[in-house]
Amino acid sequence: MLRRYSLNGRIVVRYNTHETICAPATAAGVSAIAVIRLSGPEAIPIGERIFIPRKKDLSLFDVGSHRMVLGHIMMGDEALDEVLFTRFLSPNSYTGEDMVEVSCHGSPYIQQQILKLMMDHGARMARPGEFTLRAFLNGRIDLSQAEAVADLIASNSEASRKMAFQQMRGHFSERISGLRQKLLEFAALIELELDFSEEDVEFADRDQLQKLLDEIDKEVVRLRESFSLGNVLKQGIPVAIAGKPNVGKSTLLNALLNEDRAIVSEIPGTTRDAIEDTITIEGVAFRFIDTAGLREGRDAIETVGIERTYEKIHQASIILYMFDASETSLEEITATMRDFRERLGDKGKRVVFIANKIDLMKEIPHHFRNLVDLETIFISAKRKENINMITESLLKSVESAPEEQNAILVTNSRHYEALTKAAESIAAVRQGIHGNIPGDLLAIDLRGALHHLGSITGEVTSDEILGEIFRKFCIGK
Amino acid sequence: MLRRYSLNGRIVVRYNTHETICAPATAAGVSAIAVIRLSGPEAIPIGERIFIPRKKDLSLFDVGSHRMVLGHIMMGDEALDEVLFTRFLSPNSYTGEDMVEVSCHGSPYIQQQILKLMMDHGARMARPGEFTLRAFLNGRIDLSQAEAVADLIASNSEASRKMAFQQMRGHFSERISGLRQKLLEFAALIELELDFSEEDVEFADRDQLQKLLDEIDKEVVRLRESFSLGNVLKQGIPVAIAGKPNVGKSTLLNALLNEDRAIVSEIPGTTRDAIEDTITIEGVAFRFIDTAGLREGRDAIETVGIERTYEKIHQASIILYMFDASETSLEEITATMRDFRERLGDKGKRVVFIANKIDLMKEIPHHFRNLVDLETIFISAKRKENINMITESLLKSVESAPEEQNAILVTNSRHYEALTKAAESIAAVRQGIHGNIPGDLLAIDLRGALHHLGSITGEVTSDEILGEIFRKFCIGK
Repeated sequence: MLRRYSLNGRIVVRYNTHETICAPATAAGVSAIAVIRLSGPEAIPIGERIFIPRKKDLSLFDVGSHRMVLGHIMMGDEALDEVLFTRFLSPNSYTGEDMVEVSCHGSPYIQQQILKLMMDHGARMARPGEFTLRAFLNGRIDLSQAEAVADLIASNSEASRKMAFQQMRGHFSERISGLRQKLLEFAALIELELDFSEEDVEFADRDQLQKLLDEIDKEVVRLRESFSLGNVLKQGIPVAIAGKPNVGKSTLLNALLNEDRAIVSEIPGTTRDAIEDTITIEGVAFRFIDTAGLREGRDAIETVGIERTYEKIHQASIILYMFDASETSLEEITATMRDFRERLGDKGKRVVFIANKIDLMKEIPHHFRNLVDLETIFISAKRKENINMITESLLKSVESAPEEQNAILVTNSRHYEALTKAAESIAAVRQGIHGNIPGDLLAIDLRGALHHLGSITGEVTSDEILGEIFRKFCIGK
Repeated sequence: MLRRYSLNGRIVVRYNTHETICAPATAAGVSAIAVIRLSGPEAIPIGERIFIPRKKDLSLFDVGSHRMVLGHIMMGDEALDEVLFTRFLSPNSYTGEDMVEVSCHGSPYIQQQILKLMMDHGARMARPGEFTLRAFLNGRIDLSQAEAVADLIASNSEASRKMAFQQMRGHFSERISGLRQKLLEFAALIELELDFSEEDVEFADRDQLQKLLDEIDKEVVRLRESFSLGNVLKQGIPVAIAGKPNVGKSTLLNALLNEDRAIVSEIPGTTRDAIEDTITIEGVAFRFIDTAGLREGRDAIETVGIERTYEKIHQASIILYMFDASETSLEEITATMRDFRERLGDKGKRVVFIANKIDLMKEIPHHFRNLVDLETIFISAKRKENINMITESLLKSVESAPEEQNAILVTNSRHYEALTKAAESIAAVRQGIHGNIPGDLLAIDLRGALHHLGSITGEVTSDEILGEIFRKFCIGK
């Protein structure tokens, strides 16, 4: 079932889809309802052995796929729970196999008993991600789509959801497969040449290959470059609020958080922990890095600990450097700014200076106004004045990125690595053409590029890669 | 819609079922899938406004009730998530109203967005238990069945599941309604007499009424008496392990717990916390009460703290009193036993004496054997010897209860209270008949009994009672 392009024919499919697997698909805990999944060749027989429809004369065979039927899960002669029971007939299911979903009362005890019943009838507990693995093995989705399912479940902002969703729908896969297909055609021609090597013919037009490589290279480079943005959008853009003690860092963080929390807390049952230090502004998550180190003491700049603090700041893409405008002279400010910029070096980081406590000043001194050119925002964190100027400034970092709203971004480090290796192979092919090397050597590098591009979508894969990918999934997905 | 018997006609239905409500129905947290529910007059229109089937030509109108349809939740022109969408057409739904269930990817962010969409289209967040409240208001289930739904979700042992399930299926309600119906017929006759009071007729045969009251009384008494067992089975039978320090109490608890955990831990995703101190033996939960107080010191028996420890022990139905058989003389043991029994008094508690550390003894002294008659079990907690004798002994407390396996037990303190008040009213009626009091006074007490019995099933109810009951439910149920 597994479509794969094998370099050496050594790969063996170890994953067994002859077994029927079961798992809870909803989150653990006491809740209104819970859903338990069953997939595999025995899913329907097992399901029908433990379930009796409430309408006694209703034959499940008359009920089509995807129909929810009310009835009882039976433990021998005794009803265990009243449930909704749904059959999904192959190939129209998530895994592509026959599947059953049982929607039961959300008691962990009842869920446990239903799983136990399924196992008593021959199913076994699914491993994390095993349902999605089967969807992949059965050719329902490719590997990058499978990875997107996990990303979608983990998504916690509009940006991360959108990227995962696009990838799940196969936009990224199509792009990669398209590039690979073109390359594959050329590789076939080159390999044909090898068969006729004694005759010294060239089926593959070198100029055309060169042109194709240019095209692929350009696309690979674009995708690779999108990774830092894609990754940052997925994880949340790291932001550090730095500054001396008592300049109002916590007050600012709270002012930023409060606005966001107001929206989230309307809906009960969503986890609060996750947004502890993440602020979502217009769908983009900003992840605030704890820079407690800078608060340790006034003379922190002289202490040993300062290096550690700067290490933390280095993780950030954006640094909000705060100072107390009411207590600092222009000279002091410009000196601090210079000092801070120097220490940081220029590593593509944006530094935004925040002049806080304008509520304590009668008016902003005229000469301060020059600071505006240096990207300084004057605020009162306490009175929540001009906070929106900061959020607008944060959003700028994202806007300065891809013009097209629906650009395909690489968000997965495995894909980034594969693209990097593919780029290396393509570079080698180009060099080979330039140096007029023999076709068989060219073919090796071409195969390398094909291999690495194919590993993204799973056209080429290994048990190790699959194990690594699906290990990180939820149970029941 | 609400069937109710009103004493004074003062009750007003405040609950509004004109609104369409939505809520997550599955537990909070990142998971494979999550289910969101929508119920009310606008459920189907709202659902169809935010959902587009994947098969573009598929009209939802052609798809019957209860059919899961694959497609996209739309946020304007953009797809938010790929989901399974199910319509439940009134009256064939949980609430009896039109309902929609959306099975989406288990990202809290996505759930939140879908709920937000539903609210943007006119739904509002459901209050805890509001779906079940509507099922009650729409006459799908009575009040005691609604309460059983909450109990079923909270059930954590076979005994508590079974009782809740029976109650949910209406066995208890039928019994109560049956009693009430008979009483109602008599009350009607008595009230008829009042209309003809000037003629001094007796439509209601007093002897027959007396007989009926005897019958009802007997049943009410039986149900009331079942409460202590029912409640204990629901909550877990409270057990205290008492004894001097170092007699092996923790080792015993672990030996008992281990056996149980081995079964539970096979299935991932079930909450461990709940079983921290609860052991389920053959489906019956035993709840171990912390008696740390008794471990405080050797002379604890003399200290002030001892009273508090005994208070804790008094909460238990069963006390396992442990001593070290290898270090204690027969005289000491019998003295301790007498002392412990005296302090405890006879309050219907079972005390089982556990002689531990038999592994340290070459043989059990002959004269110790007499202790067996006093319900003493000889064990080695360390080597897990004879632990099964303790579990068998614990189970005895349950077996000595109702012969019939399927006896209806009262598990709810609200029902217990109502039964107690009904019993009082019935006693007053009986006294009235005995004292030959006028029919109108008799009628008042009869109505009282009818009221209290009716409050169990919700034939008589008030907003206060409903509020109190549904407040304790999960969101989404």
